[in-house]
Amino acid sequence: VTSRPDAETGQELAEAARRGDRRALGRVLTALEDRTETGRQALRVLSPLAGRAHLVGITGPPGAGKSTLVSELVAAARAGAREVAVLAIDPSSPITGGAILGDRVRMQRHASDPASMDAAVALDACGFALVLIETVGTGQGEVAVAALADTTVVVEAPEMGDEVQALKAGLLEVADIVAVSKADRPGADMTAGSLRAMLTVGAQHDAAANGPRPRRPEVLLVSAQAGTGVAELLEAIDRRAPARDPDAAQAAAFARARARIVEAAAERARATLESGSHRAQLERAIRAVAAHEEDADTAAMRLLEGLLDG
Amino acid sequence: VTSRPDAETGQELAEAARRGDRRALGRVLTALEDRTETGRQALRVLSPLAGRAHLVGITGPPGAGKSTLVSELVAAARAGAREVAVLAIDPSSPITGGAILGDRVRMQRHASDPASMDAAVALDACGFALVLIETVGTGQGEVAVAALADTTVVVEAPEMGDEVQALKAGLLEVADIVAVSKADRPGADMTAGSLRAMLTVGAQHDAAANGPRPRRPEVLLVSAQAGTGVAELLEAIDRRAPARDPDAAQAAAFARARARIVEAAAERARATLESGSHRAQLERAIRAVAAHEEDADTAAMRLLEGLLDG
Repeated sequence: VTSRPDAETGQELAEAARRGDRRALGRVLTALEDRTETGRQALRVLSPLAGRAHLVGITGPPGAGKSTLVSELVAAARAGAREVAVLAIDPSSPITGGAILGDRVRMQRHASDPASMDAAVALDACGFALVLIETVGTGQGEVAVAALADTTVVVEAPEMGDEVQALKAGLLEVADIVAVSKADRPGADMTAGSLRAMLTVGAQHDAAANGPRPRRPEVLLVSAQAGTGVAELLEAIDRRAPARDPDAAQAAAFARARARIVEAAAERARATLESGSHRAQLERAIRAVAAHEEDADTAAMRLLEGLLDG
Repeated sequence: VTSRPDAETGQELAEAARRGDRRALGRVLTALEDRTETGRQALRVLSPLAGRAHLVGITGPPGAGKSTLVSELVAAARAGAREVAVLAIDPSSPITGGAILGDRVRMQRHASDPASMDAAVALDACGFALVLIETVGTGQGEVAVAALADTTVVVEAPEMGDEVQALKAGLLEVADIVAVSKADRPGADMTAGSLRAMLTVGAQHDAAANGPRPRRPEVLLVSAQAGTGVAELLEAIDRRAPARDPDAAQAAAFARARARIVEAAAERARATLESGSHRAQLERAIRAVAAHEEDADTAAMRLLEGLLDG
């Protein structure tokens, strides 16, 4: 193994981040988002040190009040002298680079992206006891955050448009806890009631299809405006902490490892094809596929096999 | 090559679909969504016959009024005796299967998913002159639909919450046409004005960074309620038809081929790891990664190399 110029830097950054150097942690997270060798090196140091944090996914449709609720949860957890980090996964702006502000990390990625998973591992390894992973729910996004998190909180506002309503079924599939936000507004109790009814039907369906679910999701009402329900939500989250339920924690760790390996493989395949050194082969394949001389799947398989061998 | 029991069926289905058999087309689309051998076989027949349709992506934030606008566009195009298909890409419900209703196809996939791209190819090959591909805009989704489409229409409603506003920058990056919906409502003119201003700043930025953009996006006002602007939007779409701009059409075809190859490679990598015959190897890797004995990237690379060789 030859030494790489930035390999030592990645290790040094990881060690500094572990000692509480927030600037070093910021650089680690940026390197993870940029998928650099520095990031991979840092991750090799940090990965074995992870596994103590409670990773909590906070998801829900746009406008449900996730960011406000996350801020309230952070304040409540800090009042209890706990180290909290927020990882906001936001693929909405594909152009601008990532940003790290205090202990709030913004990743311009999908929840299933290896960069997002690596960032959660890094925050865990750096001693944050509670890592809140905030994502906009659009179906596969929250399934991915559920695979990444130990506990998934789905946030729903009382009044929602038709299109947003349609997202609910998918969101509820992954919820450990459903938080009905803006509980001071009219309709919040009715929303909570209808969600409980949907979950009851879901539980009956699951019991018929696959045996009973391990735990029925809880439905809680919260209001950032009125300052109610946040402490109860934090308690509900804490009741699901990995330390209190080792079996569930191990299942979550396995699900996370599976998602990380599968997505790392997908990313590796993409990166292999797009890497500069093989661009000529990809360009030839693009022309062949565009001219309908070859189908995309055959071209992809041929390129992958050739590139991984070489 | 040995004959496979369902290979003939895929070819037969594709040929029937080409002759206008909508039920056969439905079965082809389901097979493409399910990633079966039948689907692959059908695609080998259909892929060389594609390339005549105008593929139009319709994207925008939830609640912008995309579905209503799509229905209006379909009515307007059919009034002109054109064959129109709608491909609604909706990853929001990960559980329920796909649905095909008339010429409206619902795919529970992301726009970047090979199944979505294959469905567009199949509709193109089956003679639809205009294929409207509707996706919910959440950042990477509309970038993916822009890679898939010849022309991308971004729909924005006049009044939008903060979180949805934040999506705009990403959405505008990919727009050929911006349609401000609900133009009968107060604020629509102001929204159109502010969008035009954002696009002017963007164009100046692009000109400074990369030379001028080929075409500035148009901003149009439409109201399904008042029945205004839809004919103008359809005209604006038609002005960007591939036949009228062969250079842009070829660039779009290359971008599409690139996206299809890269995503097919990623899907192939995922499928290879998750395939039943290699499950034992994946399970071992999951345990090693969960126990922090190996990092996910190394495990993925090792599995991929071994599996593709074997």
